[in-house]
Amino acid sequence: MTALTENGPLGLYYEEFDVGQMLVTRGRTVTEADIVQFGTLTGDFNPMHMDAEYCKTSFMGKRVAHGMLGISYAIGQLYQLGVLDGTILAFRELEAKFSVPIFIGDTITIKATVKEKKDAARLGGGMVKFDLRIINQEGKTITKAGITLLMASKPTDEA
Amino acid sequence: MTALTENGPLGLYYEEFDVGQMLVTRGRTVTEADIVQFGTLTGDFNPMHMDAEYCKTSFMGKRVAHGMLGISYAIGQLYQLGVLDGTILAFRELEAKFSVPIFIGDTITIKATVKEKKDAARLGGGMVKFDLRIINQEGKTITKAGITLLMASKPTDEA
Amino acid sequence: MTALTENGPLGLYYEEFDVGQMLVTRGRTVTEADIVQFGTLTGDFNPMHMDAEYCKTSFMGKRVAHGMLGISYAIGQLYQLGVLDGTILAFRELEAKFSVPIFIGDTITIKATVKEKKDAARLGGGMVKFDLRIINQEGKTITKAGITLLMASKPTDEA
Amino acid sequence: MTALTENGPLGLYYEEFDVGQMLVTRGRTVTEADIVQFGTLTGDFNPMHMDAEYCKTSFMGKRVAHGMLGISYAIGQLYQLGVLDGTILAFRELEAKFSVPIFIGDTITIKATVKEKKDAARLGGGMVKFDLRIINQEGKTITKAGITLLMASKPTDEA
Amino acid sequence: MTALTENGPLGLYYEEFDVGQMLVTRGRTVTEADIVQFGTLTGDFNPMHMDAEYCKTSFMGKRVAHGMLGISYAIGQLYQLGVLDGTILAFRELEAKFSVPIFIGDTITIKATVKEKKDAARLGGGMVKFDLRIINQEGKTITKAGITLLMASKPTDEA
Amino acid sequence: MTALTENGPLGLYYEEFDVGQMLVTRGRTVTEADIVQFGTLTGDFNPMHMDAEYCKTSFMGKRVAHGMLGISYAIGQLYQLGVLDGTILAFRELEAKFSVPIFIGDTITIKATVKEKKDAARLGGGMVKFDLRIINQEGKTITKAGITLLMASKPTDEA
Repeated sequence: MTALTENGPLGLYYEEFDVGQMLVTRGRTVTEADIVQFGTLTGDFNPMHMDAEYCKTSFMGKRVAHGMLGISYAIGQLYQLGVLDGTILAFRELEAKFSVPIFIGDTITIKATVKEKKDAARLGGGMVKFDLRIINQEGKTITKAGITLLMASKPTDEA
Repeated sequence: MTALTENGPLGLYYEEFDVGQMLVTRGRTVTEADIVQFGTLTGDFNPMHMDAEYCKTSFMGKRVAHGMLGISYAIGQLYQLGVLDGTILAFRELEAKFSVPIFIGDTITIKATVKEKKDAARLGGGMVKFDLRIINQEGKTITKAGITLLMASKPTDEA
Repeated sequence: MTALTENGPLGLYYEEFDVGQMLVTRGRTVTEADIVQFGTLTGDFNPMHMDAEYCKTSFMGKRVAHGMLGISYAIGQLYQLGVLDGTILAFRELEAKFSVPIFIGDTITIKATVKEKKDAARLGGGMVKFDLRIINQEGKTITKAGITLLMASKPTDEA
Repeated sequence: MTALTENGPLGLYYEEFDVGQMLVTRGRTVTEADIVQFGTLTGDFNPMHMDAEYCKTSFMGKRVAHGMLGISYAIGQLYQLGVLDGTILAFRELEAKFSVPIFIGDTITIKATVKEKKDAARLGGGMVKFDLRIINQEGKTITKAGITLLMASKPTDEA
Repeated sequence: MTALTENGPLGLYYEEFDVGQMLVTRGRTVTEADIVQFGTLTGDFNPMHMDAEYCKTSFMGKRVAHGMLGISYAIGQLYQLGVLDGTILAFRELEAKFSVPIFIGDTITIKATVKEKKDAARLGGGMVKFDLRIINQEGKTITKAGITLLMASKPTDEA
Repeated sequence: MTALTENGPLGLYYEEFDVGQMLVTRGRTVTEADIVQFGTLTGDFNPMHMDAEYCKTSFMGKRVAHGMLGISYAIGQLYQLGVLDGTILAFRELEAKFSVPIFIGDTITIKATVKEKKDAARLGGGMVKFDLRIINQEGKTITKAGITLLMASKPTDEA
């Protein structure tokens, strides 16, 4: 679906996204190392994520991944599909509801569905809104999110 | 404002947050190393962030930090204030609008204002909604966000 | 060229590669942070990479990236094209000649050409040999390499 | 105890520390990932830390964390209490005795007691010497250390 | 064998290597954290390395380390012996055959044998070709490789 | 000076260290990436290290490396000389005085002098106390430290 051109990979232009279209990413296992790296890099040392002893008496019972880790990895996995390669102009909006935690060893996959399109010719393209679902290895939706991306329009000389 | 007890630091309970209250974090400089680490860890290798040559001809003119880096660092900086230490039960909701990019070398500070409180006794506390503003070294608001946290209620024997 | 299926991205099967076919990757800027991370992770603290003072009197005059960094990033960039997604069975052979160094700030792109194919039905597919060229922002070939991958055969029920 | 001002968090001034005062940090679990990251970053690949096979026949029987990891994390945890925020001028002296090792999975907490204060008006404040104890999840003191920090004096117009 | 001089460690000059000479490195345990760090840094998110669920149904049955991780760590371990310290001029050629995978928790040691020497006076020294074997904790050779290094000649005033 | 045996590198035994003996390490350039990685990994986000704007008005005028980074890198560089390989039993004591800061781009070298030896036959060897000096590229001593290591005795069958 994405093109591999002589100038490198090329994602989809604004005009090439269709409402209802669904994209499914690769899976990625969230390891203890991921939580340590994400927590330290961002400075979020919340004991829910970094202190195994504290977690023994917490509601969850064990360490969980940062909510921001889940969403950030989801965007990364989506990017890796190649559909945004060189055609995304800007990341505009994000909203997310965290319902089920990601535990160490869980594997997440993302389902992204094109929810809405809105022309923004003045900005060189249009807004594409995706519904994202982060799904774990048991098929459970752990986070529902929406992102709005400004995608470039197809160059007219290629139309 | 946060307490340093014999059992470690203790953040604020649901009852101790006041609508209108504002929290200001430390500043953090977003370096080239931060962008490399965030991009590789999350898998978001978008050339906007990782390819300096590509960026020369882009709208921005140079590499920018990931939107998710900005928000993730903001949550980390907020956590480091100590007000959530041991009293946060869960991160429930997030919404963000990205307006101005973070360039390499920019320093970000976060202003978090308590916007709304909502009892959730059944869950052991209540929801606290914060308005977040990520502000750069020129005082410009680069991202507006809202987060909703489930904060624990003050134990009755301490009341 | 790669398919985005309901079960995630799907690369090319052995039968779908053609001798002569060329793949071009995204560019990636090799920063000082990359050299520090690669050198420390692998334990190669050679002063050519890690000691700016030493390099002032060296033949190169300044720090250079590890040869292994170049090849490892090249394989990563190739993987990100999606053509190997779920269809690569094993990485079998590698050969490389390093001619021009990568300096801090250089941006590398990889051109991979299918050089040779060889059936290996007993192993479930066949060997695909690629010629790789790592090219810098000036268009100079800095490393020539060859890799041999065992790619899966197309499932017969899909043929 | 630490103040959250309109200009960000504010630690304690030299005058606000009292001999005998004790600070207790959060806990942090030292994972295998922490040892790999610390060992590679600092270049200390001692097989005690990095070679599980070697350790099977060693006195300890398994990999242990670097002594410097313990002390460095302790300083980090102490910093995160907020008491040094914007009021520390310099880190002057350190001494440490390592008695019990940190194993993978151990959780460390730091108890810091103000041991001594010494005016250093010429330097803009005074020296505060802390006794540090790094304590594991079993309550065992694994490292005793002392650090001397130059803390700023309270601005006179605030006195 | 390597010298520790007043100006730092000093490796072997071209003239000091003998065909047939064997060097054995330290062992290094390849942890889950290593695979996460290597895969993210290089951008090789192949599910063979990063998706534990996918691997359950793969030929290997579980996640394996990247081939490039094995070779890169081998070069790092070889460097740490000190024999190349300040005497290596350039890394010229590499070839490798990957036969047995490295699983999480395996410990690798490298045996490097001087295979061939070739004068290159014009370049200030000569080529030294090493045969490398990466060996796991069971004594199995998992990768055979060859590297060609340009080593400096002994300064005549020291001869 | 260190031996490269058939079983890997072998450092010096307790009996092989001489009072007065001096060891000089390789140099290592401390980059902005090092400070980001050390600060985030250890959790020490002190604005002296992480906030370039704050530093503009500080005594130093710019960001400085963590004192613990300097000492931790020094131990790593010392380890890489090979003299401790397989012969160090434990790291016992550390003391350090920080006088001059390490700025981004500085290159540090370590001079370690054997100061004192003390038999500890009951522990299988003896204590070796080293004086360490961390020296920058201008030859200035930036940190003076002392470390006490428990080194193994030479096996009697080798004596």
